[in-house]
Parts: sequence; C-alpha cells; structure tokens
Amino acid sequence: MTDPAALSRLSLNQRTTASWSLPEAVQGCLYAGLGAIGIWREQLAEVGLDQACRLVAESGLRVSSLCRGGFFTDPEQAQTAEVRNREAIEEAAALNAATLVLVAGGLPPGDKDLGAARDRAVRAIERLVPYAQELGVNLGIEPMNPIYAADRGVVSTLAQALDIAERFDAADVGVVVDTFHVWWEPGVADQLQRAGQRIVSYQICDWITPLPADTLLARGMMGDGHIDFPTFSRSVARAGYRGDVEVEIFNADLWKAPPTWVVDTMIKRYLHLVQPYLGG
Amino acid sequence: MTDPAALSRLSLNQRTTASWSLPEAVQGCLYAGLGAIGIWREQLAEVGLDQACRLVAESGLRVSSLCRGGFFTDPEQAQTAEVRNREAIEEAAALNAATLVLVAGGLPPGDKDLGAARDRAVRAIERLVPYAQELGVNLGIEPMNPIYAADRGVVSTLAQALDIAERFDAADVGVVVDTFHVWWEPGVADQLQRAGQRIVSYQICDWITPLPADTLLARGMMGDGHIDFPTFSRSVARAGYRGDVEVEIFNADLWKAPPTWVVDTMIKRYLHLVQPYLGG
Repeated sequence: MTDPAALSRLSLNQRTTASWSLPEAVQGCLYAGLGAIGIWREQLAEVGLDQACRLVAESGLRVSSLCRGGFFTDPEQAQTAEVRNREAIEEAAALNAATLVLVAGGLPPGDKDLGAARDRAVRAIERLVPYAQELGVNLGIEPMNPIYAADRGVVSTLAQALDIAERFDAADVGVVVDTFHVWWEPGVADQLQRAGQRIVSYQICDWITPLPADTLLARGMMGDGHIDFPTFSRSVARAGYRGDVEVEIFNADLWKAPPTWVVDTMIKRYLHLVQPYLGG
Repeated sequence: MTDPAALSRLSLNQRTTASWSLPEAVQGCLYAGLGAIGIWREQLAEVGLDQACRLVAESGLRVSSLCRGGFFTDPEQAQTAEVRNREAIEEAAALNAATLVLVAGGLPPGDKDLGAARDRAVRAIERLVPYAQELGVNLGIEPMNPIYAADRGVVSTLAQALDIAERFDAADVGVVVDTFHVWWEPGVADQLQRAGQRIVSYQICDWITPLPADTLLARGMMGDGHIDFPTFSRSVARAGYRGDVEVEIFNADLWKAPPTWVVDTMIKRYLHLVQPYLGG
C-alpha cells in the first residue's frame, strides 16, 4: 500500500490520458490519490470554466498548470494570440493554476528569421505581463526541445527561457522545466540552480529512441528511455522547487491503453524514479 | 554558364550521393566543377587508401573532410574506438584532409549518465591529440542536434564543442559547423565569432518539417526547409572561415534520385543561398 503522502505532489497532465474528459480526469486523479491535475484549455472548454472551477474546488485537487498559452510568433496571428492569451490568463486565475504554460510558437510559414521570431515572443510576453500580474497569474515560459524549434517553440533552452523570464519579476514570469525538452542541455543543473524560485512547473516524461515517427507524439513513460530522472529531480529539488510534478506524455501507444493502467504505471515509475529524489 | 570560380569552395560530401563509390564521386565532382570532396571511411575502405590517395591527387580535388572518427562514449568499446580513430587520423593525414570529423557517440546501452558520457568523449579526444598533432591532422569536433543526444552525439551545442576544443591548440582541435545541428542554437552567431579559426568545416543541409520518420535521414536540401542560409553563411564568413562548404545530406528520397541530379540541385541552391554570402 502506497503511503498517500508519497503521491501528494504528483499531478496528471490531461494529455497523458487524452481520452479522458476533464470530469473523468479529475475522477481518475482522486481515485489514484494524486494531489494535482494539469488542465488543457481544449478539455476545459468542453465543460465550461464555471463548471470546471466547481469540479476542481470540490475535488480538492491543485491545478498544477493550465496548458496552454503562447504561440506568439506569427505576426498575422498576433492580435488573435493576444486575445486568446488574455482568456487563458483569466482561466488560470479562476482555476488558481500554479502557472499558465506559454509555448512560444514556431517559425511562421515561409519565414526563416529565427531571431525575429524569438524577439516577437519576448515582446508578446511583455504585453501580457501586466494583465497576468493584475490577475495574480504566473506565466511559465516553456523552453522546447530543438526538435520543435521550427514548428512549435522557438525558445530552445532553459538558459534562453531564463534570459527572457529574468526581464520580469519572479512573481510574474517563471519557467516550465520539462525533462523531455531540456534533459540534453549542457549545464542544465547550473541553469536549474539559476532558475531557483522561477521554476513554476516540473513536467516529466522520457526521451525514447528510436524516436516515434510523429515527433509530436514522441514522448515516453519515465523509465522507458534515456533520461536520468533521479539526478534531474535532485537538481530540481536543490534549486528549491517544492511544487507539483506533472506527468505529461504525448504518445499514441499510451493513448490506446486504458487510462487507469496509464495512471497506475506513471505512479509506479514516479515512486521509483522521481519521488525519492524530490526532497522537501 | 556558371563562373567556375563560384564553385571553387563547394564540396560534395559522399553521403549526399550515397550510391556513388569513391571513384564515381570524384568523377562527379570533377564533372560538376566542384573544388573539393568530403570522403567517408566506408567508401574509402572499398578502394583502399593508396588507390584513394592516387585518385584524389590526380583529380586535384581538396579533401574537405574525412568522415568520421569518434564514437568515444561506450567504455566497453574504448580500446577499439582508439584503434579506429588512430587509423582514421592516418587516413586523414594521407589524404591531406582539412579535418577528421569527430562524432562523440551517444549513451551506451542502459547508461543514462550523460555527464559521464560527455567526460569520456573529452578524455578520448585528449588521448588522440598527440597522434593527430604528430601527423598534422586537425580534429574537428562536431556538435550534433539534441535529437541525437541519446543515440549518436552527446556534444549538443557549438558552445559545448568550443568548450572542449579550447582545451587544445587551434592547430590541433577545431569544430565542425553543420547547419542542421546548430541552426537553432541561441546565440549561435556569437559562438561562430568565438570559434573563429577553429571552424575547420562548414557543412550545410536544411532542417525540414515534418521530420522524416527515420531521424537519421531527416536532412533536407538547402532551401527545402527552415534554415536561413544567407544569414548563417554570413556569420560563418564573418568569423573568418575561408574553407570549403560541404553539402552533407542524409535523405532517403534524395538517395533514390539520380546522383547527377542531386549534384546539379545542390549547386543551384548553393549558388542562390550560400555562395553570395561567403565573402572572402
């Protein structure tokens, strides 16, 4: 029998059990004894914000993140993106989410100016900060594995995400640390130390090889790949992070499996590879 | 009619026309008016070193690189790797190659200690330097896109490759700059400037999306993807690089096409996207 306290910091990101609606995911978290849930805006929209807030409040779960805002880089979509991000900030505030995850976005169609795209992402975050501050929402910049630099996220390293975040107060802008994205980064332990209180989310999944054909679904269950979770988790703890640990796995095979089996497996792997090294 | 001088710095890496033997590739380079060739050890072995040296000498082509040495990270293969790398140094010396390309190698099976693997690569390079120095061969450390960090190359950024190279004299150890591997790197223009005379090879191919299913064959013809070749090439020129520009494309579709068509296409793209920006 698992000590319930051992799971208190474990969070299920909804993408790990993609077939579950928000009510089903909340139920799944409660049944498994988890302390938190990472909510996606698409599934949130299915039930509506008010109903979602009630569900979450009744459940007693923390919302470890709202996924996601961002996609700032296409100049033709800039206004739409700002509107959507302001909505996302409102939702994150209503849900009392630990952070609103921001994915920068990739290169716009036909555009090869990576530097300019990165600059646009910074400017867009600058424009959002006052509203996030007003609503008490911490924006979490998520650096993405360079495999996605062209088509999804032009912020490619934790160091780069921190260069951006440090332009703002730590209470307003932090960084999302996802093992899949930054496990390979030279000097990542130093960057985690540098990040300190700016780490607003610790997301975990594994880097598996051979990489599945659809790179968007290339993430693996912890322990199935190459990432040294004990060492990485120790570094996150040493940086002072005491928040939730969110399992976020995009993987077509896992999505075919029964969600309860997925949750059960992630709990076992977490207890073996992550939880003992989290300190705090 | 192309000005022959415009192609004088263009080099065909043999992997771009994988079906050609070394004699065929040499012939193809001469026919196309290229100035250099990048040779692979596997195709070199098919004709033997003496014959290859004669072929190359008669052709008048420069050897812009010998591919490749390295694969240092598996402790159980360390002795074999050292023997193979010493042979590769001898071949590079005999061919008067501008550099012997070193690929660090990935994580050994079941090993998740990325830091230790990186350290082993550095130690192995240290052991090779005296022999390379003796034979007048410049070792070129090739940082690899993080997509290969687990299974192929644990040196992941140009900054990291330079941290290693700078332990040695620039005449002995340099860096290989391949657009596919480092195009996304934050601050890459500064790192190219830092590299300066340590750039011993400039290799080009494009980052295409969606990424082909076999990530080892995921490289594209210049212009087919997201990389800004004019800007990148200007940065390489500004760093002082005046060597050959090697087209190295691993791509299953290209390998099915007639090699002369591939060479013709790469020439057109080079003249359009790269050559005008090389300075010198």
